[in-house]
Amino acid sequence: MPLKVKDIGSFHVGGHNATLSGLPPRSMVLTKGAAPRTFPTDGDFETGQMYAQYVRLADPKARYPLLLWHGGGMTGVTWETKPDGQPGWQSWFLHAGHDVFVSDAMERGRASWSRFPEIYADAPHFRSKLESWELFRIGPPGSYPARQAFPGTLFPVDRFDQFAKQVVPRWACNDGPTQVAYDALVDKVGPCVVVTHSQGGNFGYNAALNAPSVVKAVVAVEPSGAPNPDGLDLSLLRTVPHLLVLGDNLDDNPHWQAYLKQVHRYLGALRDAGCIADVIDLPAAGIRGNSHFPMMDSNSDAVAQLVQDWMTRVGLMRD
Amino acid sequence: MPLKVKDIGSFHVGGHNATLSGLPPRSMVLTKGAAPRTFPTDGDFETGQMYAQYVRLADPKARYPLLLWHGGGMTGVTWETKPDGQPGWQSWFLHAGHDVFVSDAMERGRASWSRFPEIYADAPHFRSKLESWELFRIGPPGSYPARQAFPGTLFPVDRFDQFAKQVVPRWACNDGPTQVAYDALVDKVGPCVVVTHSQGGNFGYNAALNAPSVVKAVVAVEPSGAPNPDGLDLSLLRTVPHLLVLGDNLDDNPHWQAYLKQVHRYLGALRDAGCIADVIDLPAAGIRGNSHFPMMDSNSDAVAQLVQDWMTRVGLMRD
Repeated sequence: MPLKVKDIGSFHVGGHNATLSGLPPRSMVLTKGAAPRTFPTDGDFETGQMYAQYVRLADPKARYPLLLWHGGGMTGVTWETKPDGQPGWQSWFLHAGHDVFVSDAMERGRASWSRFPEIYADAPHFRSKLESWELFRIGPPGSYPARQAFPGTLFPVDRFDQFAKQVVPRWACNDGPTQVAYDALVDKVGPCVVVTHSQGGNFGYNAALNAPSVVKAVVAVEPSGAPNPDGLDLSLLRTVPHLLVLGDNLDDNPHWQAYLKQVHRYLGALRDAGCIADVIDLPAAGIRGNSHFPMMDSNSDAVAQLVQDWMTRVGLMRD
Repeated sequence: MPLKVKDIGSFHVGGHNATLSGLPPRSMVLTKGAAPRTFPTDGDFETGQMYAQYVRLADPKARYPLLLWHGGGMTGVTWETKPDGQPGWQSWFLHAGHDVFVSDAMERGRASWSRFPEIYADAPHFRSKLESWELFRIGPPGSYPARQAFPGTLFPVDRFDQFAKQVVPRWACNDGPTQVAYDALVDKVGPCVVVTHSQGGNFGYNAALNAPSVVKAVVAVEPSGAPNPDGLDLSLLRTVPHLLVLGDNLDDNPHWQAYLKQVHRYLGALRDAGCIADVIDLPAAGIRGNSHFPMMDSNSDAVAQLVQDWMTRVGLMRD
């Protein structure tokens, strides 16, 4: 079935001017064989902005657009076609009747990035394939060299190098301005549902805290952190249902256990404050083999359907 | 009128593995307040790939998909919504019946980038607003501080800072592998029409030379270079019509005159070899005020229509 698309477009949001001065000029050969030219490196630059692309449907069935927020060292490509070439969640949720916004957070992808140490405090980290393999739970520690994935994994292991082409450098010093840009995105879009992955989880939780009447729900897939609930008035979120989605092979992973301790503490505090904080624990529901990227695993449609069923249940679809 | 979209998706193409070894590990605090962790900086990394996103129509009227290739220091966002919030050429050509692929070349946007000097030979150049203002012919030399644009400019001058949010770092050392990735894109897509901007022009001209039976036409908007025709067998391009589109305020600009000398020499050689090499010189046609970015100027729809008329004339639309 073709999608009936009202419009497709994009924008940058957030950010501000940064002026650099007193830096030495730089000599460069821009075209092979040409004489070197000298370029000033001083000047005005935009920094801190993020990028979002939207596809709006002619007849959406959902009450609010869906904002898909990727994780650390990744871009909005997370949500697009999967590394195995099959449709991802952008496509799935469009076909399910949602307007969909796919964004690149500050410092990544089409958001652009700024020089360091002049504007960003530090240099980025380049995540190796080994680090991705272990952190994203494709296989257990030590299994990268032989590419021995977890038995029964649903990640397209033979497309792992294709997946690695999506990986972008990440900084450790930009959480504050990244949140500011996400908050500006929510403000620009208006009433919306935020679906996050990994590092995006903490940004999504905070976006809801910062705009509890605008963010209508938060779906956090494998979040790598959550706010400290101490001293927060979480009763503001009684109208903002939260859903947590967890993949497989988390139990023996001290790294992820530490992340999830924060997440479960935050969700517990939400429940104590009278909020909805549901969990889809895939292996507990009998669905084994999901990696850190359920939206790229072979059962991505089935996991999307579980999220969709929850969205319907909490009233996010039109009657 | 809603678009009837068959599918929307994306992929990375090209690139290869690079293995780094013998580099010192790095200590980083990834989460504020947490203890620093030590990360190896060695390992395997993908490098050299590019990114493309496609929107395919249920009933395309064009014979071949349109590949939109941006210029230096920019990404595919060039072709999307304009800095003034109005629809850009991605949207316009979709509505005109073309399947449209918008890509980010190697080193930019969602293509990702690699560390230097370990993988890329050199550091990138960060283009300041002043450099953009002058190079992109928003205003004459010296006019940036007061933002005194060319009289009658059609560029949305009050949205220049919004435009500047699109700008990404550019390298001067990656032309070779960027061409390789573009050639891989053409090979993956198959028969296609390439529409380029600025630095993309040279890549588009070479892509046609490298695959003259696959690239069905080249539309170069304000190209910043072209191949040296000496020794090339251009008769291979007799089935590949070329179109050059030029904006305003080029005459007094030594920088652009030098670029265009190469371009006109190449197009002249194409004509000598019996190829179609047409020119839409906008000011010569009485259309004044276009900047280096006609796809962002206020008359972008009218310029697109001129390109569309040419495409129809050279037989790129279905009967």
